[in-house]
Amino acid sequence: MAITGSILIGNEEIVGTAGTQRAVNPATNAEMEPVFGGGTLEDVDRACTLAARDFDAFRNAPLETRARLLETIADNLMALGDELIERAMAESGLPRPRLEGERGRTCGQLRLFASLVREGRFLNVTVDTALPDRQPLPRADLRSRKIPVGPVAVFGASNFPLAFSVAGGDTAAALAAGCPVIAKSHPSHLGTSELAGRAIQQAVATLGLPEGVFSLLVGVGNEVGAALVQHPAVQSVAFTGSRRGGQALMALAAARPQPVPVFAEMSSINPLFLLPAALEIRGAAIAAGLVSSATLGVGQFCTKPGLIFGIAGPAFDAFKIAATDWISAAASATMLNSGIQQAFAHGVGALGKASGVKKLGEGAEATHSTAAQPTLFETTALEFIANPKLSEEVFGPAALVIECRNADEMVKLANQFEGQLTATMHLEAEDHALAARLLPVLERKAGRIVVNGFPTGVEVSYAMVHGGPFPSTSDARATSVGAMAIERFLRPVCYQDFPAELLPTELQDEHLAEHARLVDGKLYTA
Amino acid sequence: MAITGSILIGNEEIVGTAGTQRAVNPATNAEMEPVFGGGTLEDVDRACTLAARDFDAFRNAPLETRARLLETIADNLMALGDELIERAMAESGLPRPRLEGERGRTCGQLRLFASLVREGRFLNVTVDTALPDRQPLPRADLRSRKIPVGPVAVFGASNFPLAFSVAGGDTAAALAAGCPVIAKSHPSHLGTSELAGRAIQQAVATLGLPEGVFSLLVGVGNEVGAALVQHPAVQSVAFTGSRRGGQALMALAAARPQPVPVFAEMSSINPLFLLPAALEIRGAAIAAGLVSSATLGVGQFCTKPGLIFGIAGPAFDAFKIAATDWISAAASATMLNSGIQQAFAHGVGALGKASGVKKLGEGAEATHSTAAQPTLFETTALEFIANPKLSEEVFGPAALVIECRNADEMVKLANQFEGQLTATMHLEAEDHALAARLLPVLERKAGRIVVNGFPTGVEVSYAMVHGGPFPSTSDARATSVGAMAIERFLRPVCYQDFPAELLPTELQDEHLAEHARLVDGKLYTA
Repeated sequence: MAITGSILIGNEEIVGTAGTQRAVNPATNAEMEPVFGGGTLEDVDRACTLAARDFDAFRNAPLETRARLLETIADNLMALGDELIERAMAESGLPRPRLEGERGRTCGQLRLFASLVREGRFLNVTVDTALPDRQPLPRADLRSRKIPVGPVAVFGASNFPLAFSVAGGDTAAALAAGCPVIAKSHPSHLGTSELAGRAIQQAVATLGLPEGVFSLLVGVGNEVGAALVQHPAVQSVAFTGSRRGGQALMALAAARPQPVPVFAEMSSINPLFLLPAALEIRGAAIAAGLVSSATLGVGQFCTKPGLIFGIAGPAFDAFKIAATDWISAAASATMLNSGIQQAFAHGVGALGKASGVKKLGEGAEATHSTAAQPTLFETTALEFIANPKLSEEVFGPAALVIECRNADEMVKLANQFEGQLTATMHLEAEDHALAARLLPVLERKAGRIVVNGFPTGVEVSYAMVHGGPFPSTSDARATSVGAMAIERFLRPVCYQDFPAELLPTELQDEHLAEHARLVDGKLYTA
Repeated sequence: MAITGSILIGNEEIVGTAGTQRAVNPATNAEMEPVFGGGTLEDVDRACTLAARDFDAFRNAPLETRARLLETIADNLMALGDELIERAMAESGLPRPRLEGERGRTCGQLRLFASLVREGRFLNVTVDTALPDRQPLPRADLRSRKIPVGPVAVFGASNFPLAFSVAGGDTAAALAAGCPVIAKSHPSHLGTSELAGRAIQQAVATLGLPEGVFSLLVGVGNEVGAALVQHPAVQSVAFTGSRRGGQALMALAAARPQPVPVFAEMSSINPLFLLPAALEIRGAAIAAGLVSSATLGVGQFCTKPGLIFGIAGPAFDAFKIAATDWISAAASATMLNSGIQQAFAHGVGALGKASGVKKLGEGAEATHSTAAQPTLFETTALEFIANPKLSEEVFGPAALVIECRNADEMVKLANQFEGQLTATMHLEAEDHALAARLLPVLERKAGRIVVNGFPTGVEVSYAMVHGGPFPSTSDARATSVGAMAIERFLRPVCYQDFPAELLPTELQDEHLAEHARLVDGKLYTA
């Protein structure tokens, strides 16, 4: 499939006329073909208007069609074969195995959502039967289900050009809910975005669904994205990226005449707490695992462990020595783009100069301007408390080890965090008392708590929570990974005393048993 | 129980020192005893700090204790007997049967939430079992449940001094979720608020729960409310009231360093669509029902039908005549307070003077300055489209009848509404085709769709949705009435590879069967 530098509006492809943009290969800094034309505000309006026009037709299409749409997108992505992988490699600097794995994950989540759509539990079918003889007043027949909120704007992330971008988790969840999607291409992987967008555009056509179900915009500068968030047709926004970017979209969405929710996944430093017995028994293994997790994907994961807390003593000293050995052996690698590399260099530079912060060790020197040198720092709890800048996310292969004087100090520090996607404890049975003190704090601060593992590697499953209190996300009640992600794009509607003929199919008596349901407060499985 | 004009901070009662306030009897405009002292910003901080301090202890108390707290609050409200009813009557102008009914509803929703807490479905227990042998990577053991978000600020409504106020639905839902509540007394029913607050304060003590579970603030002016929404300990805000008030709180909450969600239930005009066959067959009965619904509780319900659409013709003319007869027979009655009466008088005055709007009829003249005269207006679809002000809510016993030239015009008008709590259709079998055209529009616009009934009378049940797109509420995904209201105050947390001893009880293998749960994607009932 040729990449033409187009934007996709419904079933059309056009070359935008508002400026031009090219993808850049971060490994070579070379600009890539083709030129991409930026969309105009009229293009934004057309895409959004189509989405609004076709919303009812899409949401009322059979659930089987919606499920097959998701599966067809996955099939189409696979059919792109090496073209997709090679373009994503060139645009992101990520290696083939990582991107092949990410493609598998992307298709896996599309298929998971297809299975959710077929199963229909997300409809939240609820019936309160009429009580015509109730005193003093009869009760009406009340039935509710969840319906999609409307067109969703999707802003993908640079660090997952497949799984968190145009055909990624947000798009899959929104389409599964029955929401048309207007995606914005990430400037860091324009060609990958176009290929994924075409895979979706084709799937929409194959299923005979109306074209407004999906559009893909390219924007030079921030105007297109801002106009998308402000468009009256857009009813929800999904974003993965920086705290600054997420907060800008939140402000735009809140200032609309009709405010809409923004689900922004933004910023997390993912603290690790190394409890004394665990350090004593397997400190060296933890050090190896930590460095591996912090440098995985060049440290460019939302769940990279960035702060490591331990309690002063010989075991913690040994851990630091082992971690220094591992980081010293770590390779340099290409980051996603030069902006991210510069931010990383700035963050590492600031840490290196911060009062009371010492460099523990660093990996291979960067071999070119977009590469990162893995680096491990250390400081004390007192310095950490004194300098709030030390708890800011440094996106990339760097981490800060913090020495606490005792368990109380560790618990105190845990209480001072902002919201996190994850928090991790390494512990043994002897550590349970301290873990039980940390746990309620971590529950309040994080969406996922990991024991004896590392936070990178986010399973796409039913129990997964990839979300957490602000600023890790804009809404702690949501997750952007896993089955629960569909909830973001649904709202309940209640039907009172409807004749059967007008009821949505799934709420009609003869179809109730097809889905899980709550009848007069009692739960039934499908 | 004596009303002392106090604010309740944890288990203390103090008289606020920041200004004074008195309740006013709207039927006589007489100021009532006692004087209420306004809380200071220090009082706000103390209440919020206590709530944050005791949050973990409250949320980790046994579910049975939480359920009994809700039931004990209901018992304590009932034990207040006539004192509560008479104070609420004096402060609200509402008659005894209404307030006795509202007390029943208030206790009923507390008991409904108690049953939800015991049942535990709200925990959303979800387990993905470990797959240690999976290739290429093993899957961890992942378990998630929902936990409360943290302290909730509750702002009650003037029009439900019991059911939507201090011990009302928002407080019941928040406590059921495990969130401490800091309520603000409504200035229109300060004494009723204090009585309800004491009922809660006593229940917290009776159950041996920590005092920070509940506080009740009084505020002279808006400072206390603003400080409450801005306090870092507060994690969610529930509000029922005017659009202006709700939007002010939304702006404050969005501007916090850590933004928090606001669930504001604000403004709805609740359109009724009278379809041709229904009008033909039972227009007179619809007219009677409409006027009864629009004047119920002096028209002071969020779900009062405010706009009535029909198609020009003899049946519609006959309906208008019947409605005019009914409104002419309607009594005048005391409104909740003079501010609401003035807003009503202003709204009715503006409608009366609007171009193309005609007064169809009016009820008995107001007998005193805080009373309202029920009034029915009519206009045409063309005028209605030309003047957006005609679709603004007039809170009180007034409604506007709109004549459409044909079915297309009716569907067109439906498309132009802002978000609504409810929409209603009166229809017969012959009307189903038109109803099927209106239905997708109404689903997009409203949280509840009523057939052949009237929207007033909101059942507290499982399927109820009392919410809808902006501006009817701030978040269409939520309801403030019914079992689903608890969802507003919950967020998911995932536990990865936890040893059983550290897992929350409900996620431990031997306790899983106690609650409804999803295991490897399969739903099981308790």
